Amino acid sequence: MAKIGVMIDNMFEDVEYTSPVKAFKDAGHQIINLGIKKGTVKGKKGKASAQIDERIRESDYNYFDAIFIPGGCSPDNLRGHPEAVEFIQNFFNTNKPVFAICHAPQLLITAQLIEGKKITGWKSIVQDIKNAGAQFLDQEVVEDGNLISSRSPDDIPAFISACIKKLE
Amino acid sequence: MAKIGVMIDNMFEDVEYTSPVKAFKDAGHQIINLGIKKGTVKGKKGKASAQIDERIRESDYNYFDAIFIPGGCSPDNLRGHPEAVEFIQNFFNTNKPVFAICHAPQLLITAQLIEGKKITGWKSIVQDIKNAGAQFLDQEVVEDGNLISSRSPDDIPAFISACIKKLE
Repeated sequence: MAKIGVMIDNMFEDVEYTSPVKAFKDAGHQIINLGIKKGTVKGKKGKASAQIDERIRESDYNYFDAIFIPGGCSPDNLRGHPEAVEFIQNFFNTNKPVFAICHAPQLLITAQLIEGKKITGWKSIVQDIKNAGAQFLDQEVVEDGNLISSRSPDDIPAFISACIKKLE
Repeated sequence: MAKIGVMIDNMFEDVEYTSPVKAFKDAGHQIINLGIKKGTVKGKKGKASAQIDERIRESDYNYFDAIFIPGGCSPDNLRGHPEAVEFIQNFFNTNKPVFAICHAPQLLITAQLIEGKKITGWKSIVQDIKNAGAQFLDQEVVEDGNLISSRSPDDIPAFISACIKKLE
């Protein structure tokens, strides 16, 4: 059983949180929602909400076996907060799995973690990914070292499969 | 009187649209809202909406004297549509004024228009601005050639002053 930290804020892409989280739980893994402050964060479609279990500024990155970053406007909100940028930098450098979907690479770009890496993401951020020195691949799942990435809600089944395989 | 095209989509930062538009109208300028499709687009705070006057794909960039891009999630939505990217590229290259606030540089980054330019923008996109080869300045207004940019709603008064002066 892996302890998966989910970095999340308001305006997340609803299904990019709910579907993977359900699949991870069904596979026996533990979910800990990490946010800027305690309370509830809401999806941009108004279909889902998430309860923040721990504030990122109080979280120990060593505690987690994997970090999952859902998309929507949540990653852009998170990267405006230095503690979120620092947290993912510290975790990423442990070489444990990081799961990034849709707009999630935005947080990794601000944390300067993707230079030289193969990655995918939502179409609007392709130029940002390239400008960060990464290789953008237009595939449903891209795996490069500890990083697994997908483009959009359509890729969720393949994303989940790759993430769960990585956790085995 | 200038004809100002406003590139806008859903989830715009309400006050970053309403305040400058009011000021531009009060100064005698004409506002034409340009969007992906006809209809109403809504602000992320739920306080403002805008009626799209023209679809970007049917707009002639030569018609406009200036383009204004409000922030919020709107610029990221717009840049997912090739016609919006192409429109701002064509307009920008006429060297007529472009007014960009908050997240608006995202559209300019995807259009590859800011390399070597001085610009400011919302704190979350600073790394994207730098990676695009621009010089980020942490000021309430930055003016470089035809481009006027500001960081956030707090900068709106200074942003409006600079834009209106540019239109004189």
